[in-house]
Parts: sequence; structure tokens; C-alpha cells
Amino acid sequence: MKILFEKTTVMGHGECYVAVDGERISYIGQDRPNEEFDRIIDTRDKLICPGLYNCHTHSAMQFLRGYGEDLPLDRWLNEKIFPAEDRLTKEIVYKSSMLAIAEMIRNGICSFSDMYYFCDQTAEAVGKTGMKANICRSIVSFDPNMDPKEDSRFKESKELYDNYHNSFGGRLKVDFSLHAEYTNVEPMVRFCADYVRGMDTSFQIHLSETENEHKGCIEKYNVTPTAFFERNGILDTPTTFAHCVWVSDEDMDILKKHNATVVHNPASNLKLGSGVMPLSKMLKKGINVALGTDSSASNNTLDILKELYLAAILQKGIDRDPASIKAEEYVKLATVNGAKCQNRPDSGSIEVGNKADIIMLDVDSVNNIPIFSPVYTLVYSANSSNVCFNMVDGQILYENGEYTTLDEEKVKYEMKELKKSFFA
Amino acid sequence: MKILFEKTTVMGHGECYVAVDGERISYIGQDRPNEEFDRIIDTRDKLICPGLYNCHTHSAMQFLRGYGEDLPLDRWLNEKIFPAEDRLTKEIVYKSSMLAIAEMIRNGICSFSDMYYFCDQTAEAVGKTGMKANICRSIVSFDPNMDPKEDSRFKESKELYDNYHNSFGGRLKVDFSLHAEYTNVEPMVRFCADYVRGMDTSFQIHLSETENEHKGCIEKYNVTPTAFFERNGILDTPTTFAHCVWVSDEDMDILKKHNATVVHNPASNLKLGSGVMPLSKMLKKGINVALGTDSSASNNTLDILKELYLAAILQKGIDRDPASIKAEEYVKLATVNGAKCQNRPDSGSIEVGNKADIIMLDVDSVNNIPIFSPVYTLVYSANSSNVCFNMVDGQILYENGEYTTLDEEKVKYEMKELKKSFFA
Repeated sequence: MKILFEKTTVMGHGECYVAVDGERISYIGQDRPNEEFDRIIDTRDKLICPGLYNCHTHSAMQFLRGYGEDLPLDRWLNEKIFPAEDRLTKEIVYKSSMLAIAEMIRNGICSFSDMYYFCDQTAEAVGKTGMKANICRSIVSFDPNMDPKEDSRFKESKELYDNYHNSFGGRLKVDFSLHAEYTNVEPMVRFCADYVRGMDTSFQIHLSETENEHKGCIEKYNVTPTAFFERNGILDTPTTFAHCVWVSDEDMDILKKHNATVVHNPASNLKLGSGVMPLSKMLKKGINVALGTDSSASNNTLDILKELYLAAILQKGIDRDPASIKAEEYVKLATVNGAKCQNRPDSGSIEVGNKADIIMLDVDSVNNIPIFSPVYTLVYSANSSNVCFNMVDGQILYENGEYTTLDEEKVKYEMKELKKSFFA
Repeated sequence: MKILFEKTTVMGHGECYVAVDGERISYIGQDRPNEEFDRIIDTRDKLICPGLYNCHTHSAMQFLRGYGEDLPLDRWLNEKIFPAEDRLTKEIVYKSSMLAIAEMIRNGICSFSDMYYFCDQTAEAVGKTGMKANICRSIVSFDPNMDPKEDSRFKESKELYDNYHNSFGGRLKVDFSLHAEYTNVEPMVRFCADYVRGMDTSFQIHLSETENEHKGCIEKYNVTPTAFFERNGILDTPTTFAHCVWVSDEDMDILKKHNATVVHNPASNLKLGSGVMPLSKMLKKGINVALGTDSSASNNTLDILKELYLAAILQKGIDRDPASIKAEEYVKLATVNGAKCQNRPDSGSIEVGNKADIIMLDVDSVNNIPIFSPVYTLVYSANSSNVCFNMVDGQILYENGEYTTLDEEKVKYEMKELKKSFFA
């Protein structure tokens, strides 16, 4: 299908036409291309931006949004989250994933990184809806004497990879995951590092999210979690580390040396009382930083424009410097850095030849005008309700309040029924 | 006019009918009232909440949204804001106020506190649109030898009060304002304190927003800005202090002793690199804390639900304690504490006899379900795009995307034309 976007402001290009042929961007330019198109998109008052990346979430936890609030972390986990997860079923994971994807599509997200279990359900939701994702089965291990290769979680990870990696036209990738240092024994970490090394995949790992976790590792192993993963060979594979609130300067040097990606989850880190990731230092060191929402259980929405704004103003406040990081840099965190994190080199920006991941925002709205620069509008005044169009790999998934690949009323109804029966 | 809201969840009351007679709430209860109504409101999937209060803004600065970004505070002020304000006209203030009010109505705000100049223009915008506001002419003074009562800014304050206080059926109140300690000489402060003492009004003052301002006062007067205003008699009048990022423990005791209101502006304080107000300490001391957006020049939106969410997660992160302040307390900051700050004792909560300031949120949306508790939904997952209804003093100002008292397209068009000519 050949689609033409009428001339409008395109992030990074000024006033342009954009044409899409199939799943890729075929033209960007000042002059209207002299061709036939199957569809002409009205872009009046619209800002065209690349699709956004949510590089850390657990979409299956959508059913726990608002379930445990205003509790200390240990009570939240032990009284609310763990008992609920203990009763998790494939059905819950599918319905939660569908709602999570509906929310993300509506919020202009084109791709997400997901770490959980019953991942085949999330995979099917990704396939059905036209989203992109890097998903992984999160491995935990507590018995240092087990045989890692016989571990059910590792086997599920392997099976997920075999069944789904690069499926749905490459929209779905399968990563490997160690949940975290404190939820794994060293033999499992080393085994996974060795197994995955050289494969076409990445790791997704929680790293130094809380002070207790970070200090606990130093007490146990005499090294930080970052150094622990490095010494076990994990960093020989491209790795995405979520949170990194408590990493040291030396840890950042290790992360940079191995080209790891750090995922900043400002809302979740604040809401759970974990702290604030040292973003300015990370960026000064040249680390690839992307943005994540974490799950709705600790956020409580899957909204990368919210994280983008929050990351920006929070860092200015923490640095006590409104000029510490420029708006353009924040846009990269939500777009091209996310694509890099997910190993999607032909995505994350609006360029000819790239995958057509294109969103439009209605910026002629009372919360956005007047407009001096589209980048300031996107970072400082726009919100996800301004997103009126979301195209992923050339397929329109959302347009003017309507989804094309999912039934919004059905997704909402099923979640409400699920909540009634699960918490009866 | 008699209006009935069909039975639905009402914040603080559970499942109820709510009836409005004229400008007040006439009934809240489980049973459908046996009366005739002029209008029945469909409340399916809606959450009813009290209207929100924005207790610190400068609506006339709406035309400067996004004009100066990513600059150090002194360059932002001296290169961008001050030169633009120097060319300010009544026309700009009116058009900016109209856009600001349109944005606030759309975001569920029923009343705002505003500090600026050419205030008669803001007053007219308030009158026309049906909003409520406490407005004031901000006084600055730099000559210790001037006669305060001959000062043009003081005269304008007095005139504004005489012309507009308690106008538009009491919707509009006029406060007095000293811009800040660092922008005034002590004789003016003392004169205003004496003049206003005993009058039916309040002060609005910027206090200890930046570290430089706070320390500068101590160097100059050997007391903090709070103690400076106390010793000059300002606190004999009800006073609203905006920001208060750098106040000391002793300052908080003074604020509590005099029943002052503190307005927390988390987004603006972060974005300008000023820091974070010590909210937990303030609340522990029993100080009345309300929420404010500050202006769109430093925020960049007038969205109290955003400030509410931000205040909540920021404080959990700063306290490193997700349980430090409960969601119910945050709702108070945005509602009843705001009404107290504006001296509107019959407002701020949904109670029989109170002014009918009622908003509805469509909570059957992909960003809110499942719902475990309406208060968690409001504080942690809802956003201003879920607001679908805004009634102020019994008058519906906004319903399902449409304004009743202003022409949205005209307001937007005039701002865009203004921007073109002003910055030509």
C-alpha cells in the first residue's frame, strides 16, 4: 500500500511531505511526489514524529493497575503483587497484554520491551495487533546446585526464542532475561551468558533498582551488580539494563565499555521510592539511554510521552540546572535510542528506507499553542491525548480515536470481567 | 436550573445520585430524588469529583509557552521573558487569559489564583467564561524613598479591588500581591501589610522559590523571606505563598502559626531547576498546602491532574518511601485545600449546600481500567484528557469536548495570530 502524508511539520525535517510504500518510508521532501497513492492522509494542524519506544514493561501486570497503592515496597510485593502473580494464568496474561497494547498504541508507542512469563500469550497479542516488541521469559533461580539447562524457566526461554524470534515479519523479537542479580544464583547467570553468547538476541535485566539490592550484592559478592554481570560474561551479549538508579561511576564505565543500554523508568522509580537514575552522568558518558514505563502496577500508565516529560523536568530539578540536557536529547531517548536498544537499526527515526513507524499529534490544541518549535511542543507541552494516529511498519493501528487491529470495547470488557472473577 | 446526575461513583461518597439546584448542590444520596429536573446527566462509566483548584498561575503568560526553553534561569528571564513582557499589551493579556481559561476548563479546573498585571483583562475573561478566580496585581518596588500610596502598582491593586472584588456573583475575588521579597523594598511591604490588614482579602506572594532568593534575603536582612514578611505584618492577613522550595523548619512553623497557605508547583520548580518543596514536612506540620501550575512559560501546561500525579510520585521518590503520603491527602491538595486558600469555604468538596463545582472523568478508558478505588484512579492513572465535564457554580462550562461559554476555535486562532504579529 502506498500512502502519502500531506505536507506538514515532520520532527527533524521541517515542513515536508512523507510517503510510505509498504512497510517502509519511501520519500521525504518539500515537493509533492508525482505518483499515485492508495491513501492520502490529512495532516492539517498535525505534527509528524517517529513512533515511541517503551523499553521496559511487564504488560501482563496490567490487571494489577491500582491494586496495591501507598504501601511500603515489601508489603506491596508480599501482600499484593506476589500473591496475585501466584494465581496467574495464560488467560490473564493475554487479556492484560491486549489492554497494555491498546494503551500503548493509543499513546503513540510503536514497540515495547517486555519481561514476564506465559510469554507466548504476549507474543500472540503482539502478532494480532500489529505492534512491535522484544519479549523475554524472565529467569529466576535460587538453588546453586540445580542444573541450569534443565531449569524450566530457561527451557521456556529457549522455546520462546525458537518459536517466535523474528516472527510476524520481524515485528517480534525474543530476548533472554535474567530477572536480576538478587533473584538468581551465579551458576545460572554464567550458564545463560555462555548459552546466549554469539546468538542473534539480547539480554533484558533489572539492575540496581533499589539501594538494598545494590548494597546486598556488594555484601554478598564484594562487587556491584554491574560488575557481577560483567564478570559472568553477560555483557558479551548486547544487554538492556532497566532502572540503574544506584549504579556507581565505575558501573557506568562498564556499561559504556560494553555498549549496554540503560532504561530510565522515572515514574516507577519515584513511585516505588527507589530514587532517581543519574541521567545526566549517563548521557555525559555516552551511554545509550532509553525510556520505560515499567508496569501499570507501579506507574500506573504506559505512557512514554509522560515519561519523556517527567525525565526532562526531573533531571533539570535534580541537576538544579534548566539547561543541563536539551529537549532534542530527550526525544532521542524515546525514539532512536529505543530502536538501538531493541536492535532495530532501520527504525526510530523518520528517514527514507526506515520502517514506517509514524505517529501524528494534533498540536492545534489548547495545551500546545502557541508553537515556537515542534521539539519543545513534543517534550514540554504535548500529552498522549494529542496522539491521533499511530502507524507501525506501514500499517495504521490507530486513527482519530479508532483502533484498526483490536476491539477496544471487547478488550476493556474482558479486563473488567477478569478483575471481578479474579478478585472475587 | 435543576440538574440530576444519575447514580455513579462520587469521590468521597461511593455510589450516589447528585442533584444541583441553581449554583449549589442540593442532594447527594443512594435513592433517586422524587422531583422534576431540567436536565438529567448521563453518568455511565463516569467518576464524579469536585472541581480542581490551580492556586498559582500567571494566565497572561500563556503566549510565552515554549518561547524560551533549555536556558539557565538568568538567560531565560533576561533574554526571553523580561523583553517579551516589556512589550505586553492589554490585548495580549486578554487573549492569553482566554486561552489559559480554555485550557483550565478542559482540564477540570474550577478556580485559579492569578498574579500579574493588566488584571482587568483577566477579570473580564473570568466573567465571560464562568470560571472562578482570585486575581491580583503584582506589586514590585525598588525605590526605598518612594511614597508607597502613590505607587502606580499599588493604585492599580486598589482599583482592581474596588472594581472587581466579589464580582460575577462572587466568582471573582481580588487579592493583593507583593511579587516577592527580592522585588520589593521594605517600606512598600510594611505599607501594604498595614493597608490590607482587616480587609476582606488575601495576599499572594512568591516565597523562597530559589536558593539565591532565600539566601539573598538572609544576607540582606539577616532573616529568611518568611520571617521578613512576618516582621512586616503581612501574615496578619491570610496569605498564599507560592513555591516555598527553600523554607526552613522555623519558616514552616511561622507559616503554620499564621494559617498561611503554601502552593506547591512541582513541575515549574523542577523545570526551572529550583528544586523540590518539602511537602511531607509541610503536611506533618499541618500547613494548608494547595497545588499550582505556575505559568505555561515554565511548565508548560495548566494541568492540575498532572501536578497532582507529579506531586505524589515525586514525594515518594524524594522521601524514598512509597507510603509517606496517602492518595486521599493528594486529592485534598487539589480540591478542598485550594478552596481554603481562596477563602471559598462553601467549595472544594461535594457536599449538600456547597457550590456545585463538579467534574466528571471518563474512567472506562484504556489508561484507567481495572479500577480498584476511585481515589487511586484519580491520583495515579487518570489524566486531564479523561475529564469530559466541568461545572462551575452550577453552570456547565465543558461537556464532551465542547465549551459552552467560549469559542475554542476563535481563542486558538487569536493566539496564533497574536504570536505571528508579536514575534514578527
